[in-house]
Amino acid sequence: MRRLKNAQMQTLALDASSTTPLHQQLFLGLRQAILEGRLTPNTRLPSSRSLAADLTVSRNTILSAYDQLTAEGYITSRIGAGSYVSGDLPDDLLQRKGTGAVPRLAKREIYISKMAASLMGSPVPRQYRGLPFSPGLPALDEFPFEDWARLLARHWRRPKREFLVDNPVGGSQVLREAIAAHLGQTRAVRCTADQVIILSGSQQAIHLVVRAFAEPGDSIWMEEPGYPGVRDAIIAASATPVSVPVDEEGFSLAQAKILAPQARLACISPSHQYPLGQTMSLARRLDLLQWAKEEGRFILEDDYDSEYRYVGRPLSSLQGLDEDNRVLYVGTMSKVMFSGLRVGYMVVPNDLVDVFLALRRNIDSHSPSVPEAALADFITEGYLSAHIRRMRLLYEKRQSCLVKLLGEKLGDILTINTQESGMHIVAFLPPAIPDSAVESAAIASGMLIRALSGFYNSPTDQNGLILGFAGTAEKEMPQLVDKLAHIIRNLSK
Amino acid sequence: MRRLKNAQMQTLALDASSTTPLHQQLFLGLRQAILEGRLTPNTRLPSSRSLAADLTVSRNTILSAYDQLTAEGYITSRIGAGSYVSGDLPDDLLQRKGTGAVPRLAKREIYISKMAASLMGSPVPRQYRGLPFSPGLPALDEFPFEDWARLLARHWRRPKREFLVDNPVGGSQVLREAIAAHLGQTRAVRCTADQVIILSGSQQAIHLVVRAFAEPGDSIWMEEPGYPGVRDAIIAASATPVSVPVDEEGFSLAQAKILAPQARLACISPSHQYPLGQTMSLARRLDLLQWAKEEGRFILEDDYDSEYRYVGRPLSSLQGLDEDNRVLYVGTMSKVMFSGLRVGYMVVPNDLVDVFLALRRNIDSHSPSVPEAALADFITEGYLSAHIRRMRLLYEKRQSCLVKLLGEKLGDILTINTQESGMHIVAFLPPAIPDSAVESAAIASGMLIRALSGFYNSPTDQNGLILGFAGTAEKEMPQLVDKLAHIIRNLSK
Repeated sequence: MRRLKNAQMQTLALDASSTTPLHQQLFLGLRQAILEGRLTPNTRLPSSRSLAADLTVSRNTILSAYDQLTAEGYITSRIGAGSYVSGDLPDDLLQRKGTGAVPRLAKREIYISKMAASLMGSPVPRQYRGLPFSPGLPALDEFPFEDWARLLARHWRRPKREFLVDNPVGGSQVLREAIAAHLGQTRAVRCTADQVIILSGSQQAIHLVVRAFAEPGDSIWMEEPGYPGVRDAIIAASATPVSVPVDEEGFSLAQAKILAPQARLACISPSHQYPLGQTMSLARRLDLLQWAKEEGRFILEDDYDSEYRYVGRPLSSLQGLDEDNRVLYVGTMSKVMFSGLRVGYMVVPNDLVDVFLALRRNIDSHSPSVPEAALADFITEGYLSAHIRRMRLLYEKRQSCLVKLLGEKLGDILTINTQESGMHIVAFLPPAIPDSAVESAAIASGMLIRALSGFYNSPTDQNGLILGFAGTAEKEMPQLVDKLAHIIRNLSK
Repeated sequence: MRRLKNAQMQTLALDASSTTPLHQQLFLGLRQAILEGRLTPNTRLPSSRSLAADLTVSRNTILSAYDQLTAEGYITSRIGAGSYVSGDLPDDLLQRKGTGAVPRLAKREIYISKMAASLMGSPVPRQYRGLPFSPGLPALDEFPFEDWARLLARHWRRPKREFLVDNPVGGSQVLREAIAAHLGQTRAVRCTADQVIILSGSQQAIHLVVRAFAEPGDSIWMEEPGYPGVRDAIIAASATPVSVPVDEEGFSLAQAKILAPQARLACISPSHQYPLGQTMSLARRLDLLQWAKEEGRFILEDDYDSEYRYVGRPLSSLQGLDEDNRVLYVGTMSKVMFSGLRVGYMVVPNDLVDVFLALRRNIDSHSPSVPEAALADFITEGYLSAHIRRMRLLYEKRQSCLVKLLGEKLGDILTINTQESGMHIVAFLPPAIPDSAVESAAIASGMLIRALSGFYNSPTDQNGLILGFAGTAEKEMPQLVDKLAHIIRNLSK
């Protein structure tokens, strides 16, 4: 048994200016010395009193570190005989320890699951923090944050106990009721509150729907072009995305059946095709509902921005036409409020509620309940519909302004597809000017203009730009369109 | 072509007292009549003027409904000739429509995925809204909600644009930094902010870790007894949970290898075994880390409540001992704050950050950013550690009080396992009194006392009660323990 010289402990190098407390520095230093074998089993440690004097720290600092080492099994204390490095540490392990600094690794050869590996193939979307022209970006400056903060504070100051623990998996009852009523009035969705499941966003809903029905290898229809999050969810379920080209009537069952007769699920955006903007025709809607009924299949209706329609009222949902409980309706507050809120929802048939609650619980126990109570107030007290009405007028003006400017500056090059609804327009480019080149140059100039071709899974001749207008102020548009014109004319030289 | 008699429209039965606007009632009524074939293709509708007079509503109401029907393809308007039911609706479809009310279904024969079906086997946990003795329930009344509401309001009144859209998938940078620093100081976790991924809770973390590594059929070690959420996550990944009995040193690698030599992942709670409360011994920790390094496998460390240690300081994490980047560290704010907050986090090795971000993005784009900014303030401005310090003292008193009362009232029956840390105790029962019977009777009396046997996957002789003490006030305990004594003595008769 060796007695440790206090001098050896000086290498511990405590740093009084660090944010790490001294006792923890000492604990970590001694632990490292033990694990690396610099302090070998059964070595006697200095007494707390003498070590404190040597290190010029208080004796409590030493005692605290020794206590921690004892509690975690690195040292043992024998009454009257001092503290010793534990004798029953696995000898062979101690020699193998490294230097203490965990290396920042280059990529190792790591086995990750095939599913995880498949996701790594998708490009990680960069985040643009709401650049001008971002599709789906609402007018953040126009949101009534004072009202929202007040509603939240009302619930947070004296939260009801029921909102603090054990929110139901499907969301707070008050919010489910508010959303059921709102959807009934604005989207002709037919449901009770029990059928509404509150989620963190529409991506979570899409994920759950795919997982509920798809076996590995199953074909699932999605739109071409379409929302990339749908493809990712299908791939993550080890199923096969089948891209069905849309035409002016939207998604076509006949076309879909040719490509994959036995699809398990159809994922569509019937009210406002994403990103092209068509409305699925009534005949096509009825056809698809009939298919689902006859084949016992289901339809995911992604109704991401139908609140904003500038000609007449919003179109009715597919869900409201469904007489056989075949539609999983998905919506989000990201467009009518803002995406940082993280509230989406789905409406599912009665007899599938339990399935979706079980699936949801598995990935995320429940959602935050106090904000849900505030959101229920925001809906039932009329703030939401007032905000939507204001934004509908504003966005209509913004669209007109953008279309006019594009016509003036780029009318000879772009073919603009004005939309009766939504938050973005599509401007088609001639073949000589690749949309991906415009996208890159626009991002470099601080504008998020998406290339239409990027929404296709297969190679495509489609060549156009997606320009979000909702979140971009009219007064900024002339300068931005000038920049865009400059980019496009440069590329067309 | 037939001209519709206005009288036929009287069946529309508009209800002026309904919350559904009149134009929408009219739209829905006409749509239903068309879909059911009561209004056949090419039928001429009454003029808006005459129908308004007949229904005694404003002409705008009629025009609004007709516009909507036109927009959705149910009717066509010919200038100067009035409105007609659309001629190009699929004839055969129309006859098949039902009565309009979607039936509330009994369970249908529905194909759901095998994965979804497997989850339906797990009992859906009932929700108890924080009943006395709930394990993991914190002292909600003691939380500084005024401070929390103020921090939130600070950010909500004038939210930064970056907090409203496009929060990073891994969470706000400010919160990742705050948590990295907090974990370094309190749990000896070694990480940078980039390694921290903010999630909606520890269940989401467990789900992601399992999905990252498990192929269908892979064995995954979990503790027996253990946290049911781990088993559910393993089953949902179509992998096989292998329950490894823990002993007084916690999880045993030797035992695990006997049960399943080729496990892909080990899911453990080394600091405070759930629910029994042991600390995993240092030798076992080092053994398991060595296994992970040699076999290229990973360890999920669930560190759910280690902040509350009543003897000395919290024990160091396994993650901080790991020299080979093999530990996925999982923590939650549910215990130190409250579960309704919905914030958990994981700390992953540098070279796995991208994998976990891709997996997370697939199930949930990102988390709500303004509350994250407020939580970062709550941590960095010292509110969290002050609250933890206060609660540590309070919970220690509550534990002592509960143990004393149980000893007085039930000392002849229960064997109480006092804990040096955590938020619950385990009280063992004699074999003659089944814990599940006590659980049921306690719930019926308004107390959530969990049966220990319920945390086992295999049949077990273990027979005991899990009693959470943190969320139950001392002054309520005598009466509650009396109730429990009554239940237990009744069952032992």
